[in-house]
Amino acid sequence: MELRIGRAELAGYLAEVFPQVRDDFVIEELAPMRIRVRMPVAERHLRPGGTVSGPSMFALADVSVYMAVLAMIGREALAVTTSCSIDFMRKPVAGADLVCDCRLLKLGRVLAVGDCLIHSEGMEAPVARASMTYSIPPKGQG
Amino acid sequence: MELRIGRAELAGYLAEVFPQVRDDFVIEELAPMRIRVRMPVAERHLRPGGTVSGPSMFALADVSVYMAVLAMIGREALAVTTSCSIDFMRKPVAGADLVCDCRLLKLGRVLAVGDCLIHSEGMEAPVARASMTYSIPPKGQG
Amino acid sequence: MELRIGRAELAGYLAEVFPQVRDDFVIEELAPMRIRVRMPVAERHLRPGGTVSGPSMFALADVSVYMAVLAMIGREALAVTTSCSIDFMRKPVAGADLVCDCRLLKLGRVLAVGDCLIHSEGMEAPVARASMTYSIPPKGQG
Amino acid sequence: MELRIGRAELAGYLAEVFPQVRDDFVIEELAPMRIRVRMPVAERHLRPGGTVSGPSMFALADVSVYMAVLAMIGREALAVTTSCSIDFMRKPVAGADLVCDCRLLKLGRVLAVGDCLIHSEGMEAPVARASMTYSIPPKGQG
Repeated sequence: MELRIGRAELAGYLAEVFPQVRDDFVIEELAPMRIRVRMPVAERHLRPGGTVSGPSMFALADVSVYMAVLAMIGREALAVTTSCSIDFMRKPVAGADLVCDCRLLKLGRVLAVGDCLIHSEGMEAPVARASMTYSIPPKGQG
Repeated sequence: MELRIGRAELAGYLAEVFPQVRDDFVIEELAPMRIRVRMPVAERHLRPGGTVSGPSMFALADVSVYMAVLAMIGREALAVTTSCSIDFMRKPVAGADLVCDCRLLKLGRVLAVGDCLIHSEGMEAPVARASMTYSIPPKGQG
Repeated sequence: MELRIGRAELAGYLAEVFPQVRDDFVIEELAPMRIRVRMPVAERHLRPGGTVSGPSMFALADVSVYMAVLAMIGREALAVTTSCSIDFMRKPVAGADLVCDCRLLKLGRVLAVGDCLIHSEGMEAPVARASMTYSIPPKGQG
Repeated sequence: MELRIGRAELAGYLAEVFPQVRDDFVIEELAPMRIRVRMPVAERHLRPGGTVSGPSMFALADVSVYMAVLAMIGREALAVTTSCSIDFMRKPVAGADLVCDCRLLKLGRVLAVGDCLIHSEGMEAPVARASMTYSIPPKGQG
């Protein structure tokens, strides 16, 4: 399977549809069925103690799977998250960016499943693991 | 089991430890092992089309379980989320507040499990369902 | 919404399609969007110490949601489980039957979501909680 | 981190504590924080159409994480599953063995998290993905 949308176009699309998070996420690598997304640390992501909040990590995984799906099926589609499971395994490093490695395990006609591993930059052990299922609308409905 | 912290004190504690979300959540009801929390709609929670974003619903469930746990065990503890599963079942009503009904199904020595059902105000069918597990640190470490 | 299949017919259908588990599950109550299913304790469900195994509880939740869905949409459909999240919260009582209370939170055109709470008979606190998503095939494909 | 228990000893231990499933699972590879387990196809695992049932795949993931944990912490411990999330992504190949590749993402003092990918032998695309959390009892209580 091949990419339908390249990295620059995908980044532009993200900025257009989610203007409020345009500075939160940077696409570092994009390949068929895979993406790596960086979340630069900002004050609004933090909890007391300087670590990144759970909802911010959820958002990082969610956006990563969304972009991996769009890169494969094209931007006409309006995919929506239908479920997520996430394990928070370690405290993120204070002040370090988070990097999310996402792989699509399934890209079906109706459902897509993405698997994410999130690291603090410079720490090998993962901070969180997440699986996201997206529902893909029928053609022409998006 | 009885509440260790009442509603007013819990609200004050939330505003103190999470100043950046102090206006996002309102405790509507509090009882042993149960809480109802409202998230007033604000621009920052929205996605294109006017619906509330997935990360905002995750945050609502997460804060609800956290407060339900603290109300039972007291504020000395520094409970952390270890896992979450969430199902997004319907599009929230544009412009309507979200209300989260949370019940603690387990409050053990080490782990607490909370179950949440989220509604758009004025719509009966639930928008999302979430389960959250919190890890409770040993006394004196919090 | 109304039931399309009553309790006796549903039980007969289960015995027909899953002959190997026909004695494992008893439908105790059936109503629109709700079902209660009992799993009589048998040697094959047990782990050392006499408690019911995790896979047996998974099977109980899975079958309960499946039957709740079939009762609503009719037996022509070949629904399949697409995801499950389950929390094991307490050790089941040795020698006691398990009872699963299941509610359908969503019954859409493509996906159904069921929520289950499992108890050991005679113990109030729940043993496990499970959410199951089923994919419903388009009409005529089942 | 190093293995405390080797493959042969681990297989013997499994047969001893779970005699009823001793023929269901074969340890193919064992390394620190990793295990590969095969489930030979047998009549009792099947659903109509010849595919492996959901509960059987749950059991395969559950046993894999359990053995990966025991291999690291030693057999004195009585670890128990506290939660699982599983995505069923494709129909298993009829008549083919299932192979589970499991990696421990966390092995803490209190909780362990394992991530599993399940394939039908001879098919590259994964059949299921599962995450399992185990609770590890304090020393001396196991």
